[in-house]
Amino acid sequence: MMNYARHTTLQAAEGLHREQLDHLLDPESNSIGMLLLHFAAVEYAYQVGTFEGRELNEGEMDTWGPALKLGIEGREHIQGHDLAYYLSVLSEVRNRTFELFQSVDDEWLHVEEPYWNNKSTNRYFMWFHVLEDEINHRGQIRWIRKRVREEERA
Amino acid sequence: MMNYARHTTLQAAEGLHREQLDHLLDPESNSIGMLLLHFAAVEYAYQVGTFEGRELNEGEMDTWGPALKLGIEGREHIQGHDLAYYLSVLSEVRNRTFELFQSVDDEWLHVEEPYWNNKSTNRYFMWFHVLEDEINHRGQIRWIRKRVREEERA
Repeated sequence: MMNYARHTTLQAAEGLHREQLDHLLDPESNSIGMLLLHFAAVEYAYQVGTFEGRELNEGEMDTWGPALKLGIEGREHIQGHDLAYYLSVLSEVRNRTFELFQSVDDEWLHVEEPYWNNKSTNRYFMWFHVLEDEINHRGQIRWIRKRVREEERA
Repeated sequence: MMNYARHTTLQAAEGLHREQLDHLLDPESNSIGMLLLHFAAVEYAYQVGTFEGRELNEGEMDTWGPALKLGIEGREHIQGHDLAYYLSVLSEVRNRTFELFQSVDDEWLHVEEPYWNNKSTNRYFMWFHVLEDEINHRGQIRWIRKRVREEERA
């Protein structure tokens, strides 16, 4: 499911150039570039959360904070990259996920830990949420893509 | 996963009134109401496809076509309903899904049938796609919701 979600993300971003990746549809909007980096940031945060049982430290927040938070901070820090940059970060983080998953068994997925609203959730759901968040924002990428390409044709 | 996706859909639509459900952010936009009905239409189409092995007939296309296709046809036909209408259709279709799933076993999910691009896919993936499509558009509902509520406050 993670691979499939990523496949559709890559399709939604395919062929976009720097200006399209940076484009903000309105002042409250995230750019497609911001959303792509968000996927990598969320995945990294869940690696740390589920495999190391901790939150991001200060140095990691310097790296991933804007992409995790999006909004104002994301708009300020995430721009000027071409698609190759985003694809490279996404692929690097995903490869680390594959390595980490190879270090555990299926049982690991079913262990429950505290999660939202102080309820317990198993790690399978936590990782489902990672791809679910990606699909949610992929819907927004498709929305933005349709409009930035029309603006160009106009 | 289907229940969780639906839970987040209902949260994203909560409290919206008729004008907000009908609102089109731009001439190419789907409304939140159209997207809600789309979830029910897709789910109905997959009931028919996976349990009866057929496509929608003409009468069913009269009912579900605009919500399946969205775009121009959707904008023309889907408007003027309040949230209770959409929730009722969603719940009716979902209850039928529960009944249908109770008539089969897990093995049924793993049977492969022709799907996209003439490739075979099992029914588990087909139903994953149903919820995946819902999450994709839920991302768009959240995008629209944020903006229709700001327009109101302005």
